[in-house]
Amino acid sequence: MKKSLITSILSLALLPCYAQQALWGETPPKSPEYNADGTVTLRINAPKADKVLVMGDCVEKNAAEMTKDEKGVWSWTSNVLPSELYMYNFVVDGVRTTDPSNLFNIRDVASTTSTFIIEGGVGDYYKVRNVRHGNVHKIWYPQAGMMRRLTVYTPAGYEDNKEKLPVLYLLHGMGGDEEAWMDLGRTSQILDNLIAEGKAAPMIVVMPNGNISQEAAPGLGSNYRDQPGFALPKTMEGSYEASFPDIIKYIETHYRVKTDNGNRAICGLSMGGFHSLYISANNPDKFGYVGLFSAAINRGNNKGENKWVYENIDEKLDKMFSGKNKVKYFFIGIGNEDFLYKDNVAFDAKIKAMQNQPAEYQYMETGGGHIWRNWRIYLTEFAQHLFK
Amino acid sequence: MKKSLITSILSLALLPCYAQQALWGETPPKSPEYNADGTVTLRINAPKADKVLVMGDCVEKNAAEMTKDEKGVWSWTSNVLPSELYMYNFVVDGVRTTDPSNLFNIRDVASTTSTFIIEGGVGDYYKVRNVRHGNVHKIWYPQAGMMRRLTVYTPAGYEDNKEKLPVLYLLHGMGGDEEAWMDLGRTSQILDNLIAEGKAAPMIVVMPNGNISQEAAPGLGSNYRDQPGFALPKTMEGSYEASFPDIIKYIETHYRVKTDNGNRAICGLSMGGFHSLYISANNPDKFGYVGLFSAAINRGNNKGENKWVYENIDEKLDKMFSGKNKVKYFFIGIGNEDFLYKDNVAFDAKIKAMQNQPAEYQYMETGGGHIWRNWRIYLTEFAQHLFK
Repeated sequence: MKKSLITSILSLALLPCYAQQALWGETPPKSPEYNADGTVTLRINAPKADKVLVMGDCVEKNAAEMTKDEKGVWSWTSNVLPSELYMYNFVVDGVRTTDPSNLFNIRDVASTTSTFIIEGGVGDYYKVRNVRHGNVHKIWYPQAGMMRRLTVYTPAGYEDNKEKLPVLYLLHGMGGDEEAWMDLGRTSQILDNLIAEGKAAPMIVVMPNGNISQEAAPGLGSNYRDQPGFALPKTMEGSYEASFPDIIKYIETHYRVKTDNGNRAICGLSMGGFHSLYISANNPDKFGYVGLFSAAINRGNNKGENKWVYENIDEKLDKMFSGKNKVKYFFIGIGNEDFLYKDNVAFDAKIKAMQNQPAEYQYMETGGGHIWRNWRIYLTEFAQHLFK
Repeated sequence: MKKSLITSILSLALLPCYAQQALWGETPPKSPEYNADGTVTLRINAPKADKVLVMGDCVEKNAAEMTKDEKGVWSWTSNVLPSELYMYNFVVDGVRTTDPSNLFNIRDVASTTSTFIIEGGVGDYYKVRNVRHGNVHKIWYPQAGMMRRLTVYTPAGYEDNKEKLPVLYLLHGMGGDEEAWMDLGRTSQILDNLIAEGKAAPMIVVMPNGNISQEAAPGLGSNYRDQPGFALPKTMEGSYEASFPDIIKYIETHYRVKTDNGNRAICGLSMGGFHSLYISANNPDKFGYVGLFSAAINRGNNKGENKWVYENIDEKLDKMFSGKNKVKYFFIGIGNEDFLYKDNVAFDAKIKAMQNQPAEYQYMETGGGHIWRNWRIYLTEFAQHLFK
């Protein structure tokens, strides 16, 4: 096959509907480049731009100006970076974009960010390693009278043996959907790697869409004209928590799972932490393991037909922490720069002051704020305490 | 819940690691806006930019300059657009970006494009409608000695009944991966809608990764540092076709499917059309239905250990078109502006001149070139002829 033909096929297949020649033909600059000293250099070819910023968690203070060379390539070099999955964008004359040289992008609802992984620490859990991989299902199921979409991770071997497995329900925040924990949270990779190392039990992970008015992520629901947006008619008013048993019912009738509370866990980030708290509190015998990640504690709209969901939380917690089915492990993770930090510190104090206690309780404080870096760390920690 | 808190949670959850205030606070302009006269207006806020283009298949000649207003919002209005799924990007001072106002993005390997659907025709098949939806599985399986990833669509009801189903193997082009037919091809939506209308039989659709050296799409394979790129060590040299029975074996041992050639179809676009031709030709009793979409006919690297895959194609075709298991339906689709147009016209003539013929043969010529618009149209047509 001639090189020119390969180029033709590639350019056409990659740029299906554009004037290909305008975007093809130049070799893009190397970016990211991993330097021997542990720093990373990012580059973008933008000779016509007046100002280019790099923004992201690999940048000190989250933003820096890039430097233009004589050929119009802008570059920037990081400090030495600890192991992590980093996310960044360029801002070209005020407009945010991904790194055209970097194939590794992650979608976060409306926006796409470029990513890279620095190995040698937590980043190793976010990589696809040479271990057995679990499969992922995107499933339509009925909840609260509508068909909705959720994601299921099944660990390696699920299809080829007959053992029943425990289930973790893993909930996203208000600005997310049923894809968030897979894409930004690297759930599949974290579970594959923890299970391969024997640090986590093989488990099924269920990631529903927590915005009750949304049937699915953008483009995968029926609303393809108007922006789903975030002015949701129903948010944190109890209907999601009230109808959550529909999800459990679907999973327990369609997957080979154990159904006692020692084999059922729930956790979530931000709004998902809030959901996890009230779903577990209203179903005190159902969940043996509960994790709140940067949770929006006590932020519900305590009115309307579902206000019972949020009522009498102290009594409900006491019941969760009592009796033979009491919670085996209760986890709070919070960043010390999070805007919900004080709420979580107060909630930690409240739990510690309660007469009855979960069998195991953990309060984990990390640096940083309301960010995915923390939520990946909390999932990696939480998963290792489950179903032991 | 107070409005300011909602804003805080949203901004933090959406922009997990950036200086949020720099990117938040402005209301983005409405884009796309569907005008009453059938045109569409696209807009982007870029007061610091000197020049902004819109590129895409909604634009005449694929590119146009946008116009800046006094507030720094650039806009452009289309002609009246026929029903279709349209893809576009903005180019801000020479750098390509998506539309920040539009949540509906599609990933195409390395690049992300903004999309919108105009209803009232073929676009209606690409939308999520209020019909029963099939589920989608991302599966790891063994092929040619490595673990690789593929996508499976199961039609609505598959989980809840016991009927065995037919299988369509649906292959992408060189610049794609196991996500391409789902994302750009809208396979899930096309099948859901055709099946709901009774125009296609319920079927399982298997979408493997056709680049034999790639285990998975970017970020989902183990290579997370170096760009997978397209300088693939093995492309169209026969090893993918030779090991394709590994895929069939996995599907037929893990899904509830029929296994006679009247219930097995294969089709693909570009390199995937080339693959479909040689996979079916080398397994003449296996596939009752074969579709070549803008196929890279006769473009193989006819050397090396797998050269047998490409040898004696005329005899193999004759065998495919003979006997009791002969092909029931053979389809060629090609755009009259495609760089592979002449090759496909010649192949059409060759087939028509053969002594033996498939039970049904269709040559479909459309406008345009080597583009996803055509491949969605061909899939929509091809699927309606299968398993009848």
